[in-house]
Amino acid sequence: MEEELRSLWTQITFGSKLNIFPNSGKFNNIVIFGMGGSGIAGSIFQELYSDMPVISINDYKVPNFVGKSTLAIGISYSGNTIETVTALDECIDAGAKVVSITSGGVLSQEKYDPLIIPSGLQPRSAIGYLLIPLINTFMSFAPSEYKEAASVTRNLDNNNREIMDLAESMVKNRQIPFIYGFTPFRSLAYRWKTQFNENSKIFAYSGFFPEMDHNDIIPMKSTYRKEEFKFLVFGAENNRFISERISATADLTDSQFTIIEPRGNSILSKLFYLIHYGDYLSYYVAKARGIDPKEVEVITQLKKMIR
Amino acid sequence: MEEELRSLWTQITFGSKLNIFPNSGKFNNIVIFGMGGSGIAGSIFQELYSDMPVISINDYKVPNFVGKSTLAIGISYSGNTIETVTALDECIDAGAKVVSITSGGVLSQEKYDPLIIPSGLQPRSAIGYLLIPLINTFMSFAPSEYKEAASVTRNLDNNNREIMDLAESMVKNRQIPFIYGFTPFRSLAYRWKTQFNENSKIFAYSGFFPEMDHNDIIPMKSTYRKEEFKFLVFGAENNRFISERISATADLTDSQFTIIEPRGNSILSKLFYLIHYGDYLSYYVAKARGIDPKEVEVITQLKKMIR
Repeated sequence: MEEELRSLWTQITFGSKLNIFPNSGKFNNIVIFGMGGSGIAGSIFQELYSDMPVISINDYKVPNFVGKSTLAIGISYSGNTIETVTALDECIDAGAKVVSITSGGVLSQEKYDPLIIPSGLQPRSAIGYLLIPLINTFMSFAPSEYKEAASVTRNLDNNNREIMDLAESMVKNRQIPFIYGFTPFRSLAYRWKTQFNENSKIFAYSGFFPEMDHNDIIPMKSTYRKEEFKFLVFGAENNRFISERISATADLTDSQFTIIEPRGNSILSKLFYLIHYGDYLSYYVAKARGIDPKEVEVITQLKKMIR
Repeated sequence: MEEELRSLWTQITFGSKLNIFPNSGKFNNIVIFGMGGSGIAGSIFQELYSDMPVISINDYKVPNFVGKSTLAIGISYSGNTIETVTALDECIDAGAKVVSITSGGVLSQEKYDPLIIPSGLQPRSAIGYLLIPLINTFMSFAPSEYKEAASVTRNLDNNNREIMDLAESMVKNRQIPFIYGFTPFRSLAYRWKTQFNENSKIFAYSGFFPEMDHNDIIPMKSTYRKEEFKFLVFGAENNRFISERISATADLTDSQFTIIEPRGNSILSKLFYLIHYGDYLSYYVAKARGIDPKEVEVITQLKKMIR
């Protein structure tokens, strides 16, 4: 599993050459289907890109508006996720242009116009391959920005003792992580949550500023069991509105926030730095619990039981 | 506070006559802004209606695509929510058609083309007034469906001893609620979460099927502290795909799910029944904790500290 995590910087370098199709000019909206570790790529992209409406869906359900002017993108690392395959088939019937990002399986069939990415990883470890083609196709980042992103990610592979200590203290106190992001990194908080679920086998909660100031701020002050939660908050050094909210929320509720400042200048670097920090934190929580971070047998069992 | 809760059925009856504007024909997409107890109306509507792309935003941030073909709707019960006012002003500058749903404040100014709803409630208690105008304007429910929704809601006002018992057992065991919905009731799980936050002053977590089968199912089997969570799951009697998933998930993870079956034939009835069930459950949790469900002073304090 650690070797898989260490592949992220090469995914960034390799991924920066991938596109899902050459021309996006004729669509009015984009609908992205995907579940779990694959679906998160759609949610992260939805936050980064807003030149047209993007709807990220983690479900079987296809919206009524899907038709000729819709680009429907299915993301499934295995290519066999039943929810995503079902939804893409329905999009084809509705006349949408369909493309897929997959390492194989059903979605690698020609009718899904697939981008085939390297196989052999856990879906959640393939986030670079799954996400970067979306970014490349619709947004213009410079080669130097990809280079910086690969570099901050690789640095974390070689220097993460601090993360190990944080993980060990969380396990010692049997804490449940509460992760708070902010635009454009809200979905990264959800990515961390799912990494804690799959790697560490613990529950986790994700939310974001400013929405949490309308609800979570109340139990933060007066819930029972507060000491059993660990508040992990993405740093907002360059965003005065949010950084003021973070300080005010901690002060008013008398809470300890562990702030994780993203690194690098480009938004790509900050994005992948935060992703990778969460990868390692959830991995070390598993190790501190004496649990195999890779094993997700119950998901496999469930897939056999249902459609 | 209980009197406020008991006003929901009259909100449904009164609300069924409200519209935000007479003609929606000329828009390509809808963007809805709102935070906390007001924002949830946009999220619920986004799930119910999909004849055009609807984006529900709980943030300051306006997407780039917003322009002449966008209908921008701002929902703020007070009319003064800084995030929502800021976003609507930006939408006006971008040339979007703007409307608001509010009981007063800044958003009641003519330039926001407001629908003024009755004041004097907590925003979270005004869900009927905030949500129904959206539904009325874009969807066609029969008068008999509104009547049934008002009726199942009112029945709950007079017969909810079972909910009180559930609340008392949750408090006795200091449990954190984990609420799981499914389309089109995913946002209702989030509504319950925020009601637990604001009324009961406890943390809560919301998720949905089938996405949770890709991540939460793992800690459900092997997390620490599992006995301290209370799994509340909306019943899916009429949805075989989801009801099979619910059973399989409970079996595989050896978990006790408390299933709440929605009542009534119309989707409107099921929707408001589930909303109201969560209203009472969070209210009784507050009572069992000896806490005032109405008080949300820390939100008011924060609003004074930041923009």
